[in-house]
Amino acid sequence: MQVWKDYQAENKDRFLDELLALLRIPSVSADSRHNGDTQQCAEAVKLRLQEAGADKVEVCQTAGHPIVYGEKIIDPSLPTVLVYGHYDVQPADPLDLWHSGPFEPVIKDGNIFARGSADDKGQFYMHVKAFETMNKTNTIPCNIKFMIEGEEEVGSANLGIFLKENKERLKADVVLISDTSMISLENPSIDTGLRGLAYMEVAVTGPNRDLHSGVYGGAVANPATILAKMIASLHDENNHITIPGFYNNVQELSAEERTALNAAPFDEEEYKKDLGIADVWGEKGYSTIERTGIRPTLEVNGIWGGYTGEGSKTVLPSKAFAKISMRLVPNQDWHEISDLFTKHFESIAPKSVTVKVTKHHGGSPYVTPIDSVAFKAAHKAINATFGKDPIPVRGGGSIPIVALFEKELGLKTVLMGFGLDSDNLHSPNEKYGLANYYKGIETIPYFHKFFAEMSK
Amino acid sequence: MQVWKDYQAENKDRFLDELLALLRIPSVSADSRHNGDTQQCAEAVKLRLQEAGADKVEVCQTAGHPIVYGEKIIDPSLPTVLVYGHYDVQPADPLDLWHSGPFEPVIKDGNIFARGSADDKGQFYMHVKAFETMNKTNTIPCNIKFMIEGEEEVGSANLGIFLKENKERLKADVVLISDTSMISLENPSIDTGLRGLAYMEVAVTGPNRDLHSGVYGGAVANPATILAKMIASLHDENNHITIPGFYNNVQELSAEERTALNAAPFDEEEYKKDLGIADVWGEKGYSTIERTGIRPTLEVNGIWGGYTGEGSKTVLPSKAFAKISMRLVPNQDWHEISDLFTKHFESIAPKSVTVKVTKHHGGSPYVTPIDSVAFKAAHKAINATFGKDPIPVRGGGSIPIVALFEKELGLKTVLMGFGLDSDNLHSPNEKYGLANYYKGIETIPYFHKFFAEMSK
Repeated sequence: MQVWKDYQAENKDRFLDELLALLRIPSVSADSRHNGDTQQCAEAVKLRLQEAGADKVEVCQTAGHPIVYGEKIIDPSLPTVLVYGHYDVQPADPLDLWHSGPFEPVIKDGNIFARGSADDKGQFYMHVKAFETMNKTNTIPCNIKFMIEGEEEVGSANLGIFLKENKERLKADVVLISDTSMISLENPSIDTGLRGLAYMEVAVTGPNRDLHSGVYGGAVANPATILAKMIASLHDENNHITIPGFYNNVQELSAEERTALNAAPFDEEEYKKDLGIADVWGEKGYSTIERTGIRPTLEVNGIWGGYTGEGSKTVLPSKAFAKISMRLVPNQDWHEISDLFTKHFESIAPKSVTVKVTKHHGGSPYVTPIDSVAFKAAHKAINATFGKDPIPVRGGGSIPIVALFEKELGLKTVLMGFGLDSDNLHSPNEKYGLANYYKGIETIPYFHKFFAEMSK
Repeated sequence: MQVWKDYQAENKDRFLDELLALLRIPSVSADSRHNGDTQQCAEAVKLRLQEAGADKVEVCQTAGHPIVYGEKIIDPSLPTVLVYGHYDVQPADPLDLWHSGPFEPVIKDGNIFARGSADDKGQFYMHVKAFETMNKTNTIPCNIKFMIEGEEEVGSANLGIFLKENKERLKADVVLISDTSMISLENPSIDTGLRGLAYMEVAVTGPNRDLHSGVYGGAVANPATILAKMIASLHDENNHITIPGFYNNVQELSAEERTALNAAPFDEEEYKKDLGIADVWGEKGYSTIERTGIRPTLEVNGIWGGYTGEGSKTVLPSKAFAKISMRLVPNQDWHEISDLFTKHFESIAPKSVTVKVTKHHGGSPYVTPIDSVAFKAAHKAINATFGKDPIPVRGGGSIPIVALFEKELGLKTVLMGFGLDSDNLHSPNEKYGLANYYKGIETIPYFHKFFAEMSK
């Protein structure tokens, strides 16, 4: 609509400046040293929602990082959209690989470089500016509620409780989230599913103290070597995961579904070139699109033990550790998978070491319906601003909360993401395209418009 | 001799205070931030040698950490003993496992707790005090030279050059070193061999940046997983090392030699209890004594990659690293083994990653003659102060320089160590027994006495 176009054109620069201000707050949820920053970020989000015109805006304290809530009820008889996003970000390290400060946003080659630019500050803030656009032009077509949390990157432990305790306040017809990617601005897509997650930490202990590798080497089990052997055994020669029962509930797609999935534009040579790898790697019998979309995986996210400093130290370490997470697909249950992992990992430990397995967090996989009014509204909205129909794809990432929305609130979710896989999410030099940011702000009002119309 | 006993009894406390002062200097050779401390430690050693009565004492600068030289030539026609030791120490981390500051020596339960207390400050300083004892009581029986270096813990790279350039100054009949252990004060022993060392560092690189484990997990080789698989493959199911050619030059001992070796007092239950392990671990077909004495080994000294901080981060790391060292036995050559390792490690890397192998340092294994005058003198000296014959044993550790003494100076070495395997060498809470310290100071003059007499 012209009135939206005009308003957004007039306020273009401010829309960007406000995002940059948010990106300057190092709201790292995993690191307790940043607890003050997450609090400050929540307060900033509250202020922005109020300025945009939301009512009853509140920073809701939890046992962890706070949740920001706000709403605009224009007519209780109209449908209601619950917008979800998160203001917390991943840790920034390794810092030395960033070309500019992770919390000093820089605009370069049409991208905003900063931790959280795409995941998810840049994406949830599009909704705040889209809402402002509709509000200031008196064109809000339905009721809109905002719930912006601060623990998405650490498992959203307290959001589940918040949902239980605020069912009335959160009453809505659909959940709308922009925290995923599209194939490209030329090939817009909508995620129709997300993988679940089970995140574990393991500790392997050998001798009760670090030992001299000359005096004891060869006669005492080295926990770093044992951990390596245990990790190595978690994938077989075809890169199938060896944990007994792991694949029991995995939903196998039909030949048709797989063909449709693999029809999505994908250039493996480009993919390898972008990542600087000579070859892809993964489960035998599946394409790259399938390996990241419809198959469960197990990855070592971190490993450490012994002497890792400058030079050399001839030590036989007492302990070795690893962070290991699994991506899950329908219908794997993350609690069950966590238990299977724990049981298996403990069972493969040799007698000469002791093993401790800790669950960090997790979430169940989710598949969105593609025949719902909300999905059709998103489809139509993207067509309206991109000039072509979006391609339905399966996303590899996880937003544990999506399954919870269905469980606790009985709500379906639409994943209308505007990022790109190449945005370096969770990596140094995370970025978000200016074009993606503005395109999102332009597209979102159409979603509300079509959703309101099609709900009639 | 009574005169020695009396002098040492009178100066007992000062002998200890001087050692504690040396232990307070954090002369960590592996960490360049401590370069000032190694220099200061060398100056302190120089001062102590002068006070003890040595002549021509000098701090000799090298391309790395300095070497302290001193001598006492009482009669060129008498035999000369070259005493070797090192004032540098291993890094102190992990610091949180120390019960008291690594460089704030504490006396507890008859032990001196401090980094370097046993390895090697406490042991080389026994020679300085033994020398002082003989000098102040006018009983020096032979010429004595001191060479105390500062790079033993990092491979003694510059000592080799120093030997080449100072052949005349270092002329001697035997090298005497106290940098090893004995079985116990009740079962004194002398090392008749040392293992060699080849210390490597490996880097495995997957994608050119850290990736989101959800978006890319399962489709891109994870360097931490690949490194684990590569490390796991270095030992087979019998814990034999799988590097082709690794065992080619390994000297197999005769049944008689192995029986003699295994006759040394050793209580495996005590050993397991001390280390807090349910079972020993190692190469099939060999006893613990053999695994640490006459067999080559491969140990992971450190491993790291990905996110190792607090909480969780769903990252697929770009790189993973490990420090891997091998202990060598006669007649393995450390250069050849380093090359075999490099070639093999590169060859087992899958196409989807790149591997970089770096050599840190190394040294060749060494076996001392047990029929030499010097060995017999050490044997007799220990009998004189311990009241029983020492047991000849093979040490598992490495002093790379010992092989070099033979090569460059044509000198055999006697390894008269007074430490214990339980001294936590290279570990938190390194200790050295007060009784061991004083017993060493008491024994060493007898070595010189008998060596001079038996050389006639």
